[in-house]
Amino acid sequence: MSPTTSEPGTIMSGEMAEQPAVLRRILDEGAPRIREVAERIAAKNPRFVLLTARGTSDNAALYAKYLLEIRLGRPCGLTSMSTTTAYGAEQDLTDCLVVTISQSGGSPDLVASTEAARAAGAVTLAVTNNADSPLARVSEFHIDVLAGPEKALPATKTYTAELLALYLFVDGLRAALRGEAPAGAEAAKALPAAAEAVLARRDEVKELAQRYRFAERMVITSRGYGYPTAKEAALKLMETSYIPALSYSGADLLHGPLAMVDNVSPVIAVVPDGKGGEALQPVLDRLRDRGADLVVIGSQEQVERASAGFALPTEGLPEELQPVLEIVPLQLLAYEVTMARGQDPDAPRSLAKVTETR
Amino acid sequence: MSPTTSEPGTIMSGEMAEQPAVLRRILDEGAPRIREVAERIAAKNPRFVLLTARGTSDNAALYAKYLLEIRLGRPCGLTSMSTTTAYGAEQDLTDCLVVTISQSGGSPDLVASTEAARAAGAVTLAVTNNADSPLARVSEFHIDVLAGPEKALPATKTYTAELLALYLFVDGLRAALRGEAPAGAEAAKALPAAAEAVLARRDEVKELAQRYRFAERMVITSRGYGYPTAKEAALKLMETSYIPALSYSGADLLHGPLAMVDNVSPVIAVVPDGKGGEALQPVLDRLRDRGADLVVIGSQEQVERASAGFALPTEGLPEELQPVLEIVPLQLLAYEVTMARGQDPDAPRSLAKVTETR
Repeated sequence: MSPTTSEPGTIMSGEMAEQPAVLRRILDEGAPRIREVAERIAAKNPRFVLLTARGTSDNAALYAKYLLEIRLGRPCGLTSMSTTTAYGAEQDLTDCLVVTISQSGGSPDLVASTEAARAAGAVTLAVTNNADSPLARVSEFHIDVLAGPEKALPATKTYTAELLALYLFVDGLRAALRGEAPAGAEAAKALPAAAEAVLARRDEVKELAQRYRFAERMVITSRGYGYPTAKEAALKLMETSYIPALSYSGADLLHGPLAMVDNVSPVIAVVPDGKGGEALQPVLDRLRDRGADLVVIGSQEQVERASAGFALPTEGLPEELQPVLEIVPLQLLAYEVTMARGQDPDAPRSLAKVTETR
Repeated sequence: MSPTTSEPGTIMSGEMAEQPAVLRRILDEGAPRIREVAERIAAKNPRFVLLTARGTSDNAALYAKYLLEIRLGRPCGLTSMSTTTAYGAEQDLTDCLVVTISQSGGSPDLVASTEAARAAGAVTLAVTNNADSPLARVSEFHIDVLAGPEKALPATKTYTAELLALYLFVDGLRAALRGEAPAGAEAAKALPAAAEAVLARRDEVKELAQRYRFAERMVITSRGYGYPTAKEAALKLMETSYIPALSYSGADLLHGPLAMVDNVSPVIAVVPDGKGGEALQPVLDRLRDRGADLVVIGSQEQVERASAGFALPTEGLPEELQPVLEIVPLQLLAYEVTMARGQDPDAPRSLAKVTETR
């Protein structure tokens, strides 16, 4: 599984750069199929949605949870997989949709829990980057995120691909349930160019990375749609640079971990341009009061009120689509911090691409 | 809100020591009322359960999620509160039970989300330490965890009280739905004395604490029923000692963060005596292979295979009740590490007892 290239970071760098093309492919080629799957699932009218995933895909699952609750009004849960795989729980999943998200579609525990869900009466949907995977085969429905082979151990392009595919899926569900035409592909059409614009500003991120070269810990916070971004950014930073990066929703941060934030614990805040960002303002005020080193990923205005940041080109993008863009500078940041520390982002210690937990 | 005593840690120490008495009170005085609430809710036969909480109570909610899925076979979800409070999501919660857990019962966001859930058709249950709280008032049902006033900022006795109350509630639901007599209070009767035995071994924990006196980060892992303990231990360590403590389910640890574990990142593993502990074994093997400093909270046998640990007196306790006991040495550890570092566990920086986020 170890990379064969001699230049550190080449693989991860190349895959991050592919993201605009992948997003375009999903909008051009993937959208009709996603819409069809959404229509067929809407016809079954699931009342409750369970999302199952691990690692990076679990953060995509959390994004889908926000979409399903806010845009669709259906209650959701993230699966605690061991209840099935370790404890053999027998659940009644009638009227439930179980969405399992996995880049490889190969983890035995995901396959086992999906089989169990189907046997328990659930409608099952796999969202993977491999249409021939065991997970896709055992699921009633499948959405291919069309990201192409991902070789770097830290997942990047499959994350943004999963987000966009899940967005289009929930949009399709919503439209079908309301008897409307899906508007998601149209709303997302600015995304590929915006992602390109972010990737072109790599030098800004490289400069920001210097700030964390000797950091011993980091806190990453957000609220609402931006919270999955905070979690994914923390995971990316940890698995590449090994900096302990703790992610909290803004509300949870005030419930205890704020005690840990001081002038040696830098904070990155992902500030969505919308209601999530508004709900985060009291937390940002508290952080500023404490003199925290606050770096903001968000609007130009929010960046200007912080210690530093990266202004996102979110113009014309609804808040629920911004997560696809927000993570890109943070992926670049994880990469640049790792390079600045003299480590190789392509070869994190003891990370395997398909994790075979049961 | 600041403590008035001059001796550091007196308040937290006193409240930890009250835990056996609180557990006894719940079994003796609380159980009949909890059983009655469970019977009335079982009569409504909820099909899905949503759990809402923040901070320490959110870890109790996660414990209840495992119980509900494994022992009751009902699908569950943890609420993303901002979907209601920030985004105004209008959900259809017919056939849903919404359980809101809060020590104080006073957080405005919990009250608002409970009101919204009730208006959306849910059966609502508040689990609090204050029967006169706004949360108890707006909920259809209420369970009092009978822990007495909690003054220390780091919650300890209300956490174990919430766990036992939730255990008895789910046991009551299960019994009522199956037409059986509840057996939970009988199964739990060994708990107060076992908690007393753990508290009496404070010197062992004090010695263990020396190990982390200069730690710059920690990883805490478990699986299944032990996973909420890992999360609560991490929160407790962070809010008292400010050590960045990262908690992962064993399976998630292998998905990336393992790269961060090396001989300068100590690991604490909570190893339940049961299926969760069995599922954790491959993770423990990987950690031993890497030469990680591994401290185990679990059986004597598991402790002997680790670098050090604390052997739990779990004899006669089913796996699903062990979390009430597992957290106690870890609360003591957070306290002793904080004292060893010359800080005051009673007075963490910027922590308020009732967090007023919206």
